Amino acid sequence: MLEKTIKALKYDANGLIPAVIIDKDSKAVLMVAYMNESSLLATIQTGKTHFWSRSRQKYWMKGESSGHTQEVHAVYTDCDVDTLVIEVTQKGAACHDGYYSCFYRRLNQETGQWEIIDKPLFDPQDVYKKT
Amino acid sequence: MLEKTIKALKYDANGLIPAVIIDKDSKAVLMVAYMNESSLLATIQTGKTHFWSRSRQKYWMKGESSGHTQEVHAVYTDCDVDTLVIEVTQKGAACHDGYYSCFYRRLNQETGQWEIIDKPLFDPQDVYKKT
Repeated sequence: MLEKTIKALKYDANGLIPAVIIDKDSKAVLMVAYMNESSLLATIQTGKTHFWSRSRQKYWMKGESSGHTQEVHAVYTDCDVDTLVIEVTQKGAACHDGYYSCFYRRLNQETGQWEIIDKPLFDPQDVYKKT
Repeated sequence: MLEKTIKALKYDANGLIPAVIIDKDSKAVLMVAYMNESSLLATIQTGKTHFWSRSRQKYWMKGESSGHTQEVHAVYTDCDVDTLVIEVTQKGAACHDGYYSCFYRRLNQETGQWEIIDKPLFDPQDVYKKT
């Protein structure tokens, strides 16, 4: 049944669906990335988020380099079944720039520029040494 | 400066960027829709969310039919500047199915099926009579 439910979602022309990853407790949006049918199935079956990287054209488990995995608590879909929201517990930080959330910049509407609103939890150079 | 900041974001091949709309207070994800440069500019300048409809190939203000507008409080972008998060106060409900959030279905991991987890606030037939 799970395979049928996954197949019935609406994927884009490249077979991808966007997944909004949110923190289980604060509900903060941590990141948005793309899944295909098999990475969504792996996400549900393993309880760790898996994505399809559009830039690297590669299947990946979040945290496979950094150790910053995401433990899945719940998966939601929307009225159009073309987007997912996935509630997780984030180990370490979600962002490869070292911030807890990838959304660490807010628009200052007076200056028209982005402002960094958070502090990094780690130095990316220490975590992604091998890449 | 604002126009330059908007232009510097990364849009897809169709000139679109996904925008995750969240509730200012609960942080709940209300919907995900797509903006182009001009709908993002209109969103910031008017303080009401504007989108580009991929299915209707049309520029629209959220709430233009239903009255269920979204008042913009803050705009965030991510590390890759290819996604937006927009914090709003939602008037009425975000979902055209009558639910407060479009993400009203959660996967039941035992049955492998979606379950409705919320109650509609209105009957869509009353609100979208004209469409």
